Amino acid sequence: MRILILGAAGMVGRKLTAQLVTDGHLGNKPIDTLTLVDVVEPELPEGFSGKGAAMALDIAGPGMVETLIAQRPDVVFHLAAIVSGEAETDFDKGYRINLDGTRALFDAIRLEGRDGSYYPRVVFTSSIAVFGAPFPEVIPDDFLTAPLTSYGTQKAIGELLLADYSRRGFFDGIGIRLPTICIRPGRPNKAASGFFSNILREPLVGQEAILPVSEDVTHWHASPRAAVGFLIHAATMDLAALGWRRNVTMPGLAATVGEQIEALRRVAGDKAVKLIRREPDPLIRKMVAGWPTAFDARRAAALGFTAETTFDEIIRIHVEDELDGRI
Amino acid sequence: MRILILGAAGMVGRKLTAQLVTDGHLGNKPIDTLTLVDVVEPELPEGFSGKGAAMALDIAGPGMVETLIAQRPDVVFHLAAIVSGEAETDFDKGYRINLDGTRALFDAIRLEGRDGSYYPRVVFTSSIAVFGAPFPEVIPDDFLTAPLTSYGTQKAIGELLLADYSRRGFFDGIGIRLPTICIRPGRPNKAASGFFSNILREPLVGQEAILPVSEDVTHWHASPRAAVGFLIHAATMDLAALGWRRNVTMPGLAATVGEQIEALRRVAGDKAVKLIRREPDPLIRKMVAGWPTAFDARRAAALGFTAETTFDEIIRIHVEDELDGRI
Repeated sequence: MRILILGAAGMVGRKLTAQLVTDGHLGNKPIDTLTLVDVVEPELPEGFSGKGAAMALDIAGPGMVETLIAQRPDVVFHLAAIVSGEAETDFDKGYRINLDGTRALFDAIRLEGRDGSYYPRVVFTSSIAVFGAPFPEVIPDDFLTAPLTSYGTQKAIGELLLADYSRRGFFDGIGIRLPTICIRPGRPNKAASGFFSNILREPLVGQEAILPVSEDVTHWHASPRAAVGFLIHAATMDLAALGWRRNVTMPGLAATVGEQIEALRRVAGDKAVKLIRREPDPLIRKMVAGWPTAFDARRAAALGFTAETTFDEIIRIHVEDELDGRI
Repeated sequence: MRILILGAAGMVGRKLTAQLVTDGHLGNKPIDTLTLVDVVEPELPEGFSGKGAAMALDIAGPGMVETLIAQRPDVVFHLAAIVSGEAETDFDKGYRINLDGTRALFDAIRLEGRDGSYYPRVVFTSSIAVFGAPFPEVIPDDFLTAPLTSYGTQKAIGELLLADYSRRGFFDGIGIRLPTICIRPGRPNKAASGFFSNILREPLVGQEAILPVSEDVTHWHASPRAAVGFLIHAATMDLAALGWRRNVTMPGLAATVGEQIEALRRVAGDKAVKLIRREPDPLIRKMVAGWPTAFDARRAAALGFTAETTFDEIIRIHVEDELDGRI
């Protein structure tokens, strides 16, 4: 089978790539071709026995996605996006990549399959940023998408396009709304939600981290490992169970920042917790105030998606996967 | 004040134009300039004392909306759309006008106002087609938009853009989700919902009409007169009350086709009812099965929008406004 990953150089893209290379198959089918695409050239991990390709290109550039889709990948993972903070500060760039790029991809598939001979699976990573306050205490699966960021708006539009293109038979699509991924490895990116990871990741390696919001902020999280699990399940499950509601809020764990910090204390002690420096940031606080807190993600559970149930587990996964088990 | 109406040759556009010309003002402000635009040249009614202009143009054509927005209208009514049936049969045309045209308009306003000197009111007619089955018995204001037509998808995307562009301060926008307008005057158009009007309008003038669905189909209606009322209220009310949820389901009347027919019998007698010919249409039945039935439109009521409460009233409005009071 042929797999295309857009946004393969991002954190989730790299983790997904590594998992696919380790597995060598997706579902029951061996992976023959793996094409990795991002705005910077992604790294193809060693040990892949099939045909691999990695390239840097702009998905919103003329003819770019058409070239990729002409190879007729069986599964397209569309993870490419300008993240929330940057989409808010650079209006044009956010719309260009997150809306125009996504639409160009979907249209390339539609046109490639005009004669009925091409019908791939499309897995689109959406985000809980499609939701905006005010919220009920727990957000149900049929709650409206009223985003309060341009990023969330662009993701919500991507979801609508994905559902319509699926309904019209152009591809077999699923949009998965990722919780805020925690703990993000590596260096901070421009996502406004980065601090949720920073306040755990940095203290775990003896570094200071800044907490820009108060400890009573509640948010919805899952680990990078869970995210890869969502993506692979989305790529292999029978989508008929979704009907035409092709976008699903992924399961996660609702926790306050205070609960995150207590989990850090249990796993890594007071010394780690002391490295968190409070430095309130009005802009981040304002953005976070519009973000969702907790979901009743029943559909996802019924469809077989699973995530962590304690923050201790989320931290331990980071220690295992990123720190070789050592604190 | 300067007013621009896009989609002015359509049924609602013509009724709105007529009302504005009769009133001579919008809110408390006299109307100095009225620009009417559609894909065919709209008719400027007699009796307008200000500066009127009517023109045919393609809102998705290059530079078209920019020219209109360069005139800096204070209020933009965006009613232009490819209707549901046609957007379903002509995929490209629907996306081109309903998505690209709407985005071009919103972007033209954004760019015109770059220096902060232009900030118009934008009234966008959305539709209850943004919702798709399965539904609760009564649909609340915070129900998700999961459309089952390309038209509904395009309107839902327009709503998201309108909300984001309003939040970012590019214009002061409101999207009003119109119920299915009943009784539509004039000749049938390509809207799949046309039969709801046809089965009343045609018998009222002694003509036969076709009913393609069963009598237990429930749907959500308001009169053309109510629609004009919604538009004028949306153009003049203080939008701060909406917060950033700038799209509002308009009030209406939930009625079965059977109840519509009984109202026709009360107003126009058995003779009229006998002119309705049952001719089931599987395609229309299938589309209608995905449409919403009844709403709890509390937000709209709290914001001062009002509609009819009986179907007899809806029929009488048609007799008054279209048939000079004569049956």
